[in-house]
Amino acid sequence: MKTGNIGEFGLIERLAETLGATGDRVLRGIGDDAAVLEGRADRLLLATCDVQIEGVHFVSGTIEPVQIGSRVAAVNLSDIAAMGGSPLWALVSLIIPPSTQVEHLEEIYRGMADELSRFGARVVGGNTSSTSGPLTINMTIIGEVEKENLLTRDGARIGDILCVTGDLGSSAAGLGLDRDTSVACDAAVRKSLVHRHLTPSPRIEQGRLLGASHAVTACIDLSDGLVQDAGHIAQRSGVGVLIHAEEIPVTADVRAVATSLRMDWMDLALGGGEDYELLFAADPGRCDEILARLEEETGISARKIGEIVDGAPEVIVIRDGTKINPASAGFDHFERGGSGC
Amino acid sequence: MKTGNIGEFGLIERLAETLGATGDRVLRGIGDDAAVLEGRADRLLLATCDVQIEGVHFVSGTIEPVQIGSRVAAVNLSDIAAMGGSPLWALVSLIIPPSTQVEHLEEIYRGMADELSRFGARVVGGNTSSTSGPLTINMTIIGEVEKENLLTRDGARIGDILCVTGDLGSSAAGLGLDRDTSVACDAAVRKSLVHRHLTPSPRIEQGRLLGASHAVTACIDLSDGLVQDAGHIAQRSGVGVLIHAEEIPVTADVRAVATSLRMDWMDLALGGGEDYELLFAADPGRCDEILARLEEETGISARKIGEIVDGAPEVIVIRDGTKINPASAGFDHFERGGSGC
Repeated sequence: MKTGNIGEFGLIERLAETLGATGDRVLRGIGDDAAVLEGRADRLLLATCDVQIEGVHFVSGTIEPVQIGSRVAAVNLSDIAAMGGSPLWALVSLIIPPSTQVEHLEEIYRGMADELSRFGARVVGGNTSSTSGPLTINMTIIGEVEKENLLTRDGARIGDILCVTGDLGSSAAGLGLDRDTSVACDAAVRKSLVHRHLTPSPRIEQGRLLGASHAVTACIDLSDGLVQDAGHIAQRSGVGVLIHAEEIPVTADVRAVATSLRMDWMDLALGGGEDYELLFAADPGRCDEILARLEEETGISARKIGEIVDGAPEVIVIRDGTKINPASAGFDHFERGGSGC
Repeated sequence: MKTGNIGEFGLIERLAETLGATGDRVLRGIGDDAAVLEGRADRLLLATCDVQIEGVHFVSGTIEPVQIGSRVAAVNLSDIAAMGGSPLWALVSLIIPPSTQVEHLEEIYRGMADELSRFGARVVGGNTSSTSGPLTINMTIIGEVEKENLLTRDGARIGDILCVTGDLGSSAAGLGLDRDTSVACDAAVRKSLVHRHLTPSPRIEQGRLLGASHAVTACIDLSDGLVQDAGHIAQRSGVGVLIHAEEIPVTADVRAVATSLRMDWMDLALGGGEDYELLFAADPGRCDEILARLEEETGISARKIGEIVDGAPEVIVIRDGTKINPASAGFDHFERGGSGC
């Protein structure tokens, strides 16, 4: 079977079967945002890797080299955020067409270093290779988290409240505007949304707060789209995830751009992907407190968008009182990129 | 300036300038075989990454998928060996042309898992992405070493003895035979040398012994060729490295193949690269003991091939009593692959 026909998650499942189970010093292997490994004293190590490829994840000419670097770092940092951790160290593989300008790579490196340093992390190693293919940058990030603060995908309990940070669909709207410059849009809005797409903000500070609250039972970062990522929580926790579509935070700008793109804003929010916000399930008795603290202490608000319910481990979306089919939403990463696992 | 014109090491130097210095929890960043990081209790963490690319590091059709997997693991494991460490965990990025067969990837994964498990390590995470370019596999390995057993490139002292494990030039001879099947060669010899090239053996056990001996002052794995890698010890330790060409272990088979390839066997040994043996400097008073223990306890012999001398930090090769110019030897990795740094 060709990989193009099996899909990213099918492939990962097949490959994971080749590997052994977890062991003494591996608390979690494949199946969460990062591997969870034995650390020093009361800490756990987190390790995750992700790749950005020219023509798949970004297109030269529409993104500055320094932004490519920021983006590589941000998508990896986001996986550490989803585990409640702090990033420490990064390793970078630069896979380069020989015609690449050294100055271009220096700018990419500067973008990576700056984005990492915002969160106290740094590049500690790497390698370079030439390729006949497109510019490809792989980053591995190693981070850590206090044992009691670890966030995972698999602890959601029936009755928990489902929440999401920030707003959704901005990245997909920005991508749409970036791909089709003929779409009518206010210049400042276009610039802002394209920027949101090109350089996402990893929610490290928010993940730290959620982990330290000890009231968040499951968490994931939104790389593949709300429905697909909520599905990971459903499957890993063995619960149903109910989403009230009207509660999903989507800005007026994104709704307007969706109309210009001749799309339903809901599709951008449910399936757009690459928002890199945090989706989490919280103890119903502590949820309001957590949302208040997120806003006060980190300046990023979060919103209740659903709840964890009894039933099959799947995602149910209710819109205008009607259950809608979420299977049509979500990116397949063999069409657009890939995410850490 | 194009990266094709600056060379791998020039590029790494330029990029490293973009990054900060080492800090509290980073004992060594870019510049050795692996980054050295704070670990648990009396251990240090080691982290390194390396990539294998179809058409650059291997050519499908001349290598089995399971061998591709072994090779990816081996070249990374070799960097951990050079630091005296034990590998623990690996993260893998598979960057895949959409036409790739799933079964092909499963075989690659099996090769990786088997090679890692020989040394007690395993894959704990990764990701997949599609590419318009060639099949590209990145692996990051995290390992550990007891603080007092760490091997680095920078501790060689004047008077130390330079030694190398195994024999050199076999990989380059195997590559030559693999590239040109018309070269006359005994079938068993061809098979053996090609195998040496395709699936190198990381010297983990030997590196562990050298580190624990506390009598080895510098160590590096031979990925780029003897002269180039000895040059790293010279530069990082600030010493001269003198190599007696006649002492370099090169088998009769490699010498014969060199003749068939119309090459000097010395060039295969000095510049061929990818032997993944360990080159190390040892305390002269303890060297014989170390060589005896390597053979007895690991079944791999090592040989004295030179010494650390006063003078400029460069490599001097003496052949038949004459100093020869080693600058002509060594691979440039923008022609063939790339190595961890």
